Amino acid sequence: MLTELKKRVLAANLELQRAKLVICTWGNVSGIDREKGLIVIKPSGVPYDELTVEKMVVVDTDGRVVEGGLKPSSDTPTHLQLYMHFPEIGGVAHTHSPWATAWAQTRKAIPCFGTTHADYCYGEIPCTRQLTAAEISGDYEANTGRVIVESLQGRDCMDFPGILVASHAPFTWGKDPEETVENSLVLEEIAKISFLTRMIDPMAPAIGKELLDRHFLRKHGAGAYYGQGKK
Amino acid sequence: MLTELKKRVLAANLELQRAKLVICTWGNVSGIDREKGLIVIKPSGVPYDELTVEKMVVVDTDGRVVEGGLKPSSDTPTHLQLYMHFPEIGGVAHTHSPWATAWAQTRKAIPCFGTTHADYCYGEIPCTRQLTAAEISGDYEANTGRVIVESLQGRDCMDFPGILVASHAPFTWGKDPEETVENSLVLEEIAKISFLTRMIDPMAPAIGKELLDRHFLRKHGAGAYYGQGKK
Amino acid sequence: MLTELKKRVLAANLELQRAKLVICTWGNVSGIDREKGLIVIKPSGVPYDELTVEKMVVVDTDGRVVEGGLKPSSDTPTHLQLYMHFPEIGGVAHTHSPWATAWAQTRKAIPCFGTTHADYCYGEIPCTRQLTAAEISGDYEANTGRVIVESLQGRDCMDFPGILVASHAPFTWGKDPEETVENSLVLEEIAKISFLTRMIDPMAPAIGKELLDRHFLRKHGAGAYYGQGKK
Amino acid sequence: MLTELKKRVLAANLELQRAKLVICTWGNVSGIDREKGLIVIKPSGVPYDELTVEKMVVVDTDGRVVEGGLKPSSDTPTHLQLYMHFPEIGGVAHTHSPWATAWAQTRKAIPCFGTTHADYCYGEIPCTRQLTAAEISGDYEANTGRVIVESLQGRDCMDFPGILVASHAPFTWGKDPEETVENSLVLEEIAKISFLTRMIDPMAPAIGKELLDRHFLRKHGAGAYYGQGKK
Repeated sequence: MLTELKKRVLAANLELQRAKLVICTWGNVSGIDREKGLIVIKPSGVPYDELTVEKMVVVDTDGRVVEGGLKPSSDTPTHLQLYMHFPEIGGVAHTHSPWATAWAQTRKAIPCFGTTHADYCYGEIPCTRQLTAAEISGDYEANTGRVIVESLQGRDCMDFPGILVASHAPFTWGKDPEETVENSLVLEEIAKISFLTRMIDPMAPAIGKELLDRHFLRKHGAGAYYGQGKK
Repeated sequence: MLTELKKRVLAANLELQRAKLVICTWGNVSGIDREKGLIVIKPSGVPYDELTVEKMVVVDTDGRVVEGGLKPSSDTPTHLQLYMHFPEIGGVAHTHSPWATAWAQTRKAIPCFGTTHADYCYGEIPCTRQLTAAEISGDYEANTGRVIVESLQGRDCMDFPGILVASHAPFTWGKDPEETVENSLVLEEIAKISFLTRMIDPMAPAIGKELLDRHFLRKHGAGAYYGQGKK
Repeated sequence: MLTELKKRVLAANLELQRAKLVICTWGNVSGIDREKGLIVIKPSGVPYDELTVEKMVVVDTDGRVVEGGLKPSSDTPTHLQLYMHFPEIGGVAHTHSPWATAWAQTRKAIPCFGTTHADYCYGEIPCTRQLTAAEISGDYEANTGRVIVESLQGRDCMDFPGILVASHAPFTWGKDPEETVENSLVLEEIAKISFLTRMIDPMAPAIGKELLDRHFLRKHGAGAYYGQGKK
Repeated sequence: MLTELKKRVLAANLELQRAKLVICTWGNVSGIDREKGLIVIKPSGVPYDELTVEKMVVVDTDGRVVEGGLKPSSDTPTHLQLYMHFPEIGGVAHTHSPWATAWAQTRKAIPCFGTTHADYCYGEIPCTRQLTAAEISGDYEANTGRVIVESLQGRDCMDFPGILVASHAPFTWGKDPEETVENSLVLEEIAKISFLTRMIDPMAPAIGKELLDRHFLRKHGAGAYYGQGKK
């Protein structure tokens, strides 16, 4: 069942490790088959080196395991919230990559300091509010997804490669698992460059509106002219 | 004698180097056979590339060499103290990994800024007090172990992956040599992310109690639900 | 057509990735055949791993594609401006390498703190002024080239390995594509070391004039005595 | 002539690159045959990948080329000064490794913050004074060596793995070329950890005298007990 998607989700999980975005088992990627309403996700706590196509877990949109002998990632309810509220996305990833996680731990958005950032994100990378005690003691992982959705209310999720969860770490998304992992990598690099910028000049200014528009829109939307065009 | 444990301790020592936690001969791992009361540890000053199963040294709980033609690590008395006072542990490691060592050199605990840390450590990573002049001129390495034990008095050592020794570097432990080395890696990554957090915002707040509990307890203790359950 | 130059420009683009100066498709290198007035440049948005000699694009000095089935880099007009105004150069490169990009995002020149820098650059690494709204909404990429040229007015471009474009990232050049990529690597390393210097001591002084002269001139110009002499 | 020493000096130069202490041609190692009064050193400006045993240059203690078809490193006069004044040493290395170079550019010694440093250096890593204009315009490279010697006047050079030259970069030494390169690596790691320490706590205190003594003397001198003893 969903063998092709499982292969892609497996490869995407392995790419997290190869790109040094995770150590130990500190991350997971999922992909969705929108027609079938089924999600393929990494099993919980299994080292990347031991992952196989067969070990990937299939869950439905309520989180019930449909196929697979292992428990799905403990973050599955967060992924499900994102798939439910962001119908454009085809993949979700979570890592504790160090530079992005540091920003998340400060509970602050990453300012948009330049074109590197503007090429991927239409303004600052948001950081969620803190979860309440009740949200933490309750359905914690689903509430993590809900607070992400809340943070982007009234915004187009595709204008952002992902988001920071306060005191926690980044979640990213994309049109498919491959783009999702690329967005994890991009968010980490942006977090690093923004850190360095802030260190050199604590008063470093945000990018101007015209330059932000120019760079974001040359890669996204109807007027995009970067790359070789849609295939 | 203890061939299986020697192999595991050798592999754990080599993993320190592979994971870039040590350069030169800046670290060592040991493992204990609790039934026999014997410890296997790296020989002193021998490069990792020259280590073999045969070169691993077996000492008893008083530090007497029981087997092996080489001198054991000069840090052996520290390891012995930890094995004596922490009966739950099966491995001890020592490195001078840079981020953790930097925190140790500031003589300050690493604050718990987020879930990455909370997944492994129930609160801040402690830093020992300074040794006194008498403790340094006396049985220095054993006293290093004693001050670690003193720092955790009244605490469960398994709530911590390890500790910082003031003006020195980290020591870690775990249920076996493999988990011990993983804890060295985790402590280094936590030290790095905490450093970055502190740099972005010198007033970055510690994680809330509810989130600390949620993350630590979803991986540790009776209510844990992370991973695939005990084998 | 220009097969030899295409091979060199391809190799130079691949070297950006190998030297970890780029992730994703965040950089490009071109080379010029001055006699024919033709430039070979990377195609836009194509991953480095998929680049081949055949995919390299040939454009004339007005930016018209002379050969190749793909669109040239969206930064081509910037490259063309540099070739037009800097007749000594044979290659141009653009990256978003993190340390140099951070300095660019602060909109400040990199001070010359020492001999590492002085060996390659006769004084600080300049940073351009911000483009105006009209320059951004107009012929943006060509204007990026024009503001670089403006920044070096009255200076010898060969006294600099490259420049920072404000709120954007570095552009470098050299006598050929190989030297150009080496200058990207050098600029990144200088940016890193300068960052570290500034962090240790925010008041760190610039190098003295005598030492700057000594180092720059022992590698450049008639009195150079570094290396094995011209071949 | 001196084939064995050439092989060792070649390997030591290649190790600089392998250990990521240099990029481009930013470093050199030499070794001395004290009986013959001859030094083997890297040729100037030759990439590490092109070095061979045959390309190594032999010079006498006055810097005259005794064997080899290439010019010796432009830093040769600095090496010669160190060999002349430090009769205990058998190797000299020079790099622009980033963390040590940053400290050199601040023109400040690296404080001894902990045991990692104390294991190799008996106190802070000194930084030379600035050269005068006359020293720079005169016999610059020899004067660089002279100012290093001046900085260690009244000290035992073997109590230090090397030194920082102000506004320039580190020079290291050791009993032979292998130990010299190890000292370059150690100095870089100490510079990094000291940087991180200073960043976390700008007021971080230096190591206490007792702990400094204990660590330095357990590895050096008559009372040393680290390692397997002299062979």
